[in-house]
This record gives sequence, structure tokens and C-alpha cells, in this order.
Amino acid sequence: MKILLKIKYDGTEFFGYQVQREHRTVQGELNRVSARLFGVDCNITGCSRTDSGVHALSFYATVEPKSAAVGNIPISNIPRAYNSLLSDDVCVVAAFEVGDDFHPRYDVISKEYTYLLHNSQTRDPFLKNKALHLPKTISEEQISRMNQAAAHLCGEHDFVSFMSEGSNVQSTLRRIDYAFVENAGEVDDGSMLAFRICGNGFLYNMVRIIVGTLLEVAYEKIQPDDIVKIINAKDRSAAAQTAPAHGLYLSKVTYQDQTLK
Amino acid sequence: MKILLKIKYDGTEFFGYQVQREHRTVQGELNRVSARLFGVDCNITGCSRTDSGVHALSFYATVEPKSAAVGNIPISNIPRAYNSLLSDDVCVVAAFEVGDDFHPRYDVISKEYTYLLHNSQTRDPFLKNKALHLPKTISEEQISRMNQAAAHLCGEHDFVSFMSEGSNVQSTLRRIDYAFVENAGEVDDGSMLAFRICGNGFLYNMVRIIVGTLLEVAYEKIQPDDIVKIINAKDRSAAAQTAPAHGLYLSKVTYQDQTLK
Repeated sequence: MKILLKIKYDGTEFFGYQVQREHRTVQGELNRVSARLFGVDCNITGCSRTDSGVHALSFYATVEPKSAAVGNIPISNIPRAYNSLLSDDVCVVAAFEVGDDFHPRYDVISKEYTYLLHNSQTRDPFLKNKALHLPKTISEEQISRMNQAAAHLCGEHDFVSFMSEGSNVQSTLRRIDYAFVENAGEVDDGSMLAFRICGNGFLYNMVRIIVGTLLEVAYEKIQPDDIVKIINAKDRSAAAQTAPAHGLYLSKVTYQDQTLK
Repeated sequence: MKILLKIKYDGTEFFGYQVQREHRTVQGELNRVSARLFGVDCNITGCSRTDSGVHALSFYATVEPKSAAVGNIPISNIPRAYNSLLSDDVCVVAAFEVGDDFHPRYDVISKEYTYLLHNSQTRDPFLKNKALHLPKTISEEQISRMNQAAAHLCGEHDFVSFMSEGSNVQSTLRRIDYAFVENAGEVDDGSMLAFRICGNGFLYNMVRIIVGTLLEVAYEKIQPDDIVKIINAKDRSAAAQTAPAHGLYLSKVTYQDQTLK
């Protein structure tokens, strides 16, 4: 029996997705509740490894009881059963039965990340840990510069310049399907900007380094076309600083099987 | 010198507005930062006393240095000066110079509170501590019942049936200008309902007891017209349970002087 959970979480009080002995993690929460519901320990595999403070609007994980499950819960009751036991900052949105060969990470066709930028002179207490506060006004022209820069990311490239150390990947080639900044609505005394980027996979800290670099484009420290030079440099030091974790959301995950949503 | 601050705060991590020796409060934060900015202790007087967990989108407090201020900050720089020292869950939105006879509580003409109800089968981690989650669908007809009930609150009444013990007020008469429930937007898998109520003043826990009672109207435990009987009973036990604090926002404060906003 393999169950695919679609979950959503506020990453503020988690030390990231992946289980850690000493810290509270999303996987740790899923382990705890799954063992309770099925009466046996379960293998939990996530679609991604979000960092400490990063949020997910849409995240998938499979649950496989390690031996015959003691509990027997109809699939339609799974979300409610989990939600009655999970803590308030994570919830199960939907659940699906999948075949034994389904893999929540390898079977991903594309993932979309969203990075929220709160552009307002005054910070908003209700956006604490939910968006990066940018007190200097970003004009339409600056957004346009960021979009010129972001367009250079599309297609297949070696994104090693946009990768932090500390991960272990065989290839640093990734395909980006779209990348753009849009106005995501008016807020008190300013606006919310959303940077959206979708591709077949992302390197460690890639989205956050891209956001840091696009902000340098906005503030005219570098030119939009410099993105090409940064990609070609294949050197992390060519790109800008990593933007903070708390503005980042895993916002969409697409599988071949379109019913999994 | 008397300065009126317009502030905004997420009440989740505060033990209410009013200063307490052992706990973190909004007034305590204002005391700390004001003493730092003006170089002397200051008298801080708020427009209201919100409870632990209650939020404010618009809250006013006056600041008066107890002796000649050491610092001298132009009024236009006051918000930025405060925001550089206040913690992230409270901010100063605007600042005004007011006369010595201005009182932030006695001079209020009306206050509006908003109570957010998240009506969705699944709770939302991002609304934790920000709205009351109601998993059962509330239909248009149920909203209409709540609005019939709420209409009976308008006008001047003795609201003692909607007051918790523990406050010390001379009169329990209050004037309500409007009270209604409206759809405040679609959210994932449901909608956000907002109950808005405006009047010249509110008794201890009054809005939260009204919300608890309107929910009994929605769920057909009582009829809309029963509100009249509850008011006339002049007995707290005639009304329903107090709704939790975390859905409540002080959303608007109106003074005679319309420039104070």
C-alpha cells in the first residue's frame, strides 16, 4: 500500500522538510502521525527538501507502512484523519492511492516556486516570516528590468552559479520553463510582488540566489543581460547573495498523472 | 508634547495590549521603544485594551515623555524611528502631534471590529491564529440568518448579556452603528467570512460573545429573533459561548478630527 499525500505547510516553525533527530521537521510530523494512524512505522518520501523557514502551498509525500498496517482507513478519510493529529502549521489537502513504482521526487515533471516580495515603506506585522520586506519602492520599470533578466533563465542551462555548496548532485543542468515577476495585489501602503519560476528541478538554494540576483538587477547594480554572463561563469561568486528563506514557497508540483492534484 | 501613534499588530505573541509585569504586551513594547527614542520614560495611553491573541489593523496610542525629552525627532520621522526598534509583530503606521487635551480613548467616536471566519473543510496552516476555522460549510442562507440576527444589535441597547465578568464599567449601554457578516473572498477550498461591527464602544468580550451567539443562529440552535430576547434578558448566560480571541481584529478607530488616519 502506497499513499500519496498532498500537503501544505507554514515553514516558520519547522527546521525544513527533512527529518532531523534534534529538530522539529515536516517529515518528522508526518512520521509521528503516520505511525499513529497505521499502527506501524512508515516510510515517508517527499517530493523535495525545503529548507528551514521555506513554505509549501503544494507539497507531495508518499507514505508506506513498513509492515502490514494495523489501521485500515478508507482513502477518502485520510486527509481528515491526518488533520486531526497534525499540528496547526501543516495540513493534508488531499490523498491518493498510487502504485508501488510511483516516486514522489523522480516522477515530478515540473515544480513551481513563488517568492513573495512585500514592497512597502512600512513592514507589515501580518507578513512577518511570510514575505521579504523591501522598503524602497520598486517601479514598473524596475519590474520590467527584472523580467528582462529572468527571461535569460529560461531553457536548459548549467545553473551551478546559482547553487550553494552543501548538496551532492550528479548534474547541475536544469530546464526552466518560465520565470517572471508579477504584481500580486495591493497591500496597505504598497504592493506584493511575486517572482514565479517553474522548471524540471532546482539546485540547492537556486531560487533564493536567483531572487537575490534579480534584486541587484532591480536596483541597477547589474544589468539584465548580465544574467547570461553569470550563467556562463559557472561560479557561485558571480551571482548575488542568497535571499532569505521566509519569502519562498513551493507553489505547484506537476506529475504526469494529472489526477494527482 | 503629546504624540499620537497609529499602530498595527499581530496579537499572537502578545499577552494583550495592556502592560503586565511578567508578560510581553504591546504597551510594554511601546514603553521600551519610547524610552529609548526620547531618552526618558513616557506615559503611553491606548485607545482600547485588546486581549491576549486579539489583533489590531488600526490602533491608536498617545506617547507623552514624563519630563523634557532628550531626543528630538521630527514628527515625520517618528514612524521610521519606532519601526527600527520595535519587534516585527508590531509597527507604527503613522504619527501625529496632538493637543494636551486629546485622549485616545475618550475622544473615540466609533470603533470597528472585524472577526474572521475561515469556512473550509480543511484548515489552512497560513491562517493559524488569524481566523476561526469553521469546517462545516456555511450557506448563503445561514449567512442571511446571521445578518437578520445582527440587525437586532443596531441602535442603543444595554449589552450586559454580552459582557464577560472581570471588567468594571459604569454603564453597559452601548450604541451599535452597524453589524453584518459578509463574504471576504475565496480561499483554497472555501471562503473567508468577515463579521464587522461598529459602535461607540464595546464591553469586555462583547464582540466575541456576539460572534459565538451568531454562530448558534447560523447552526439553527437559536432563531435570529432570539437576539432580542437575549438582549432583554440582561443575563450573560442567555448568550452563547465566547468565540476564541484569534479571529478578532480591531479594524478601524474614528476620531472627530478626520485628519488622524
